[in-house]
Amino acid sequence: MTLTGQSIIGFARTENTEPVFFGKNAATGEKIEPAYRGATLDDLDKAAGLALAAFPVYRDFSRQRRAEFLRAIADRIEAIGDPLIHRTMAETALPEGRVRGERGRTIAQLRFFAQIVEEGTWVDVRIDRADPARTPPKPDTRSMYRPLGPVAVFCASNFPLAFSVAGGDTASALAAGNPVIVNAHFGHPGTAEMCGAAIREAAEATNMPDGVFSLLFSVGYDIGQALVAHGAIKAVGFTGSRRGGMALLKTAESRKERIPFYAEMSSVNPVFILPGALAERGPQLAAGLHTSVTLGVGQFCTNPGLVLLPRNAQADTFTIELTEKMKSTAPTPMLNEGIRENYDALVSKRTGETAVRTLIPWSPAPQAAGPALFETDAKGLLGNPQLADEVFGPSTLLVRYLDSEQAVEVANELEGNLTATIHSGPGDEETVRRLVSVLETKVGRILFSGFPTGVEVNWSMVHGGPWPATSDGRSTSVGGRAIYRFARPICYQDAPAEMLPEELR
Amino acid sequence: MTLTGQSIIGFARTENTEPVFFGKNAATGEKIEPAYRGATLDDLDKAAGLALAAFPVYRDFSRQRRAEFLRAIADRIEAIGDPLIHRTMAETALPEGRVRGERGRTIAQLRFFAQIVEEGTWVDVRIDRADPARTPPKPDTRSMYRPLGPVAVFCASNFPLAFSVAGGDTASALAAGNPVIVNAHFGHPGTAEMCGAAIREAAEATNMPDGVFSLLFSVGYDIGQALVAHGAIKAVGFTGSRRGGMALLKTAESRKERIPFYAEMSSVNPVFILPGALAERGPQLAAGLHTSVTLGVGQFCTNPGLVLLPRNAQADTFTIELTEKMKSTAPTPMLNEGIRENYDALVSKRTGETAVRTLIPWSPAPQAAGPALFETDAKGLLGNPQLADEVFGPSTLLVRYLDSEQAVEVANELEGNLTATIHSGPGDEETVRRLVSVLETKVGRILFSGFPTGVEVNWSMVHGGPWPATSDGRSTSVGGRAIYRFARPICYQDAPAEMLPEELR
Repeated sequence: MTLTGQSIIGFARTENTEPVFFGKNAATGEKIEPAYRGATLDDLDKAAGLALAAFPVYRDFSRQRRAEFLRAIADRIEAIGDPLIHRTMAETALPEGRVRGERGRTIAQLRFFAQIVEEGTWVDVRIDRADPARTPPKPDTRSMYRPLGPVAVFCASNFPLAFSVAGGDTASALAAGNPVIVNAHFGHPGTAEMCGAAIREAAEATNMPDGVFSLLFSVGYDIGQALVAHGAIKAVGFTGSRRGGMALLKTAESRKERIPFYAEMSSVNPVFILPGALAERGPQLAAGLHTSVTLGVGQFCTNPGLVLLPRNAQADTFTIELTEKMKSTAPTPMLNEGIRENYDALVSKRTGETAVRTLIPWSPAPQAAGPALFETDAKGLLGNPQLADEVFGPSTLLVRYLDSEQAVEVANELEGNLTATIHSGPGDEETVRRLVSVLETKVGRILFSGFPTGVEVNWSMVHGGPWPATSDGRSTSVGGRAIYRFARPICYQDAPAEMLPEELR
Repeated sequence: MTLTGQSIIGFARTENTEPVFFGKNAATGEKIEPAYRGATLDDLDKAAGLALAAFPVYRDFSRQRRAEFLRAIADRIEAIGDPLIHRTMAETALPEGRVRGERGRTIAQLRFFAQIVEEGTWVDVRIDRADPARTPPKPDTRSMYRPLGPVAVFCASNFPLAFSVAGGDTASALAAGNPVIVNAHFGHPGTAEMCGAAIREAAEATNMPDGVFSLLFSVGYDIGQALVAHGAIKAVGFTGSRRGGMALLKTAESRKERIPFYAEMSSVNPVFILPGALAERGPQLAAGLHTSVTLGVGQFCTNPGLVLLPRNAQADTFTIELTEKMKSTAPTPMLNEGIRENYDALVSKRTGETAVRTLIPWSPAPQAAGPALFETDAKGLLGNPQLADEVFGPSTLLVRYLDSEQAVEVANELEGNLTATIHSGPGDEETVRRLVSVLETKVGRILFSGFPTGVEVNWSMVHGGPWPATSDGRSTSVGGRAIYRFARPICYQDAPAEMLPEELR
């Protein structure tokens, strides 16, 4: 596939010349060809106009046709083959296994949503038939979920395939029946263009309306902000930092017409390790936690950044074992320079906190992020709530609690998170019960005796959680339920059959 | 039932002395005993603390127990008997038939949600079983809808029973498993206290936790604003004016922890009358529209405030017939003085608009609202979009369109509304198709050959719509789907059976 460095506006490409940015080799910092031209506000307007025009056409296609489109996208991404794998590896410094795995997940996700659309029950058909004999006469009312209109999708830095151009947001928005305009991430423009070209080709090959998909490249934040502010856009999906999410949320809140805004922003994914678990399987827990914290250089939304441990000898041993493993983890390049600089700054800051003990010596490595491990006690955390803020990277904070009472107190003081995990063993039953009762109000997914990294794509998954993990705690960005972010129920009263969507006839 | 004039905080009553306001006879302006004491911020804190403590207990009750509570509320409201009817009639000037009907609807709504809770499928159980043989091993994940936590409910002036203390918001929030704190409307405090006392008694009689329900009386906006800002509150339901809804939305948006905020704010419910319908049944349409516009002194969210008519002789006849009917409609007291003053002001303003013709002479009547009828053409409306703003009361604006092209253009320019209606006849098929395609993006309910007033309470109903009809266009405040406003999916991964909610075991 030849890359052009141009935005995709419906079936066409821009022919812009300025300004210019390059993809970079994340491990070396070197530029990678081609140069990417920035989309203009005119390009955005064109994409938005096409999307608005495409909406009623695409919305009213049969579910078979929408499924066919999603499957064609999956097939074409698969067909790109190794060039996609290599470009993604270069742009993100993610290892080959991870990139191949993520491509598999991306394709599977598109096919999963194709299946959901085709099967069709997600629309939740409700029919109440007329009763003319009632006083007053009862009308015929029928309702189902219908798409919202053009959706803006923001690519995530940390999932260049599965949460970017053809990722979960795009797949669920298209599945629901909405055109999509994607704002590419500057960190992996080549990956974005390859996936965008695959969607464009799939749209043409399956006779979708021009404008069902567009992809905008830009430098800076202007185009992204203008996209959220654009009157044609009826919902937004974003995965990224709290700062980025908040900036776009402010824009969404200053729109004349408010729209659903879904930002998945940050999470420390607390792990509660209870005394019974430590007594039973301390070494396995240390090994498991180490793997989860350092997986993908800690660049997962579900990375465990807060680990609650009792104050006992077994926790001391656990801490020593974990410290050894963390120490021996080699510094590894992160997704991009900005992310690494941010990681270095947050770890440096944490190193200086008086309430915190630094368990392994830490100094910024050039072009790479070294592991970081910190310790405090529950009182230290409760007195410094900012210690529960996310440090995006291979870092975690161990928090020692005095007794189960204090563990529950910490749970109570947590902000919203994507996940919480409980490791328990004999004798912990009552603490587990109390923790679950609190964590139900704090997270989207509660794990038992596992680790939060690794998110299944299926109907039961919830990858969401109360503020500030997401801007809308009722939503999930992974799994079948993600489709409901981009739909709303519409009721038809006494409608002639030919005016009803197929499913309601 | 003896009224105390005190707020209900869990199972207790406040013993406040100041400040004081009275319910008023809406027809005469006379005060009605008793004096109502204002809840303090301390009272709110107490109610919030009790609600937070009640939440995990109430949430984890069996669905049978929650259904029993809802049915006990319905029974007790029914058991108040005529004193409730008479108090409501006095406080709102609504006629007896309407108040009895609304009581029936309120009771039926509570029983409907009891049935939904008991039946149980609303929680949308999704189970994906473990597969230890997969690489990596597949965990067991299960998810369902769970309640959010304490919900704040704001009473509506125009539905003193069905959208107030024990109305749809409270019923759906309690059904989902949330404690509720209600902010009473100053316009019908006696009605509110009667219903609140019924809920309190039902809670005690069915052994609900103290704090599952509280009811706050206050003057001014401070307590309502503090309620929305309160950290214990996890969602808000509001029905009222756009100004009121926007003021509370701003407060919700300035919270540290954002929460779901549902305001049903305003709607003009456009009615498209097409040439074929006029030719076939002009007189019936004029009679039907007149009834719908003047029903309940026009004080319905679904009141038709914008009527699109062709420019032809049959529309002229229709206009003459409608004008005669409107003229002969006697001025009638409105819900309260503020609403009437607002109506008078908006009608006066509209009378002065250059683009608008006033079809019946209008002057403010003392203590009552007279009908108002205006006419403009599509160009006048498109050039003055504020003509599509809601005038809450027995008023409507006829808008003449040149041809079906222009009718579709008007539909395209509309803001979000709760409903839109199409009356069609032979020859209108293509226009109907085009209108439906546009109106799908504008409203929550599309009616064919009916009138928008009268909202069924069933599973298929949608009483919601895109901004600014509501603050969250994916929601409905009427019907079974209303329960989803106050719940979110939670996923349990590899959970021991005893830690799962009953439905997921």
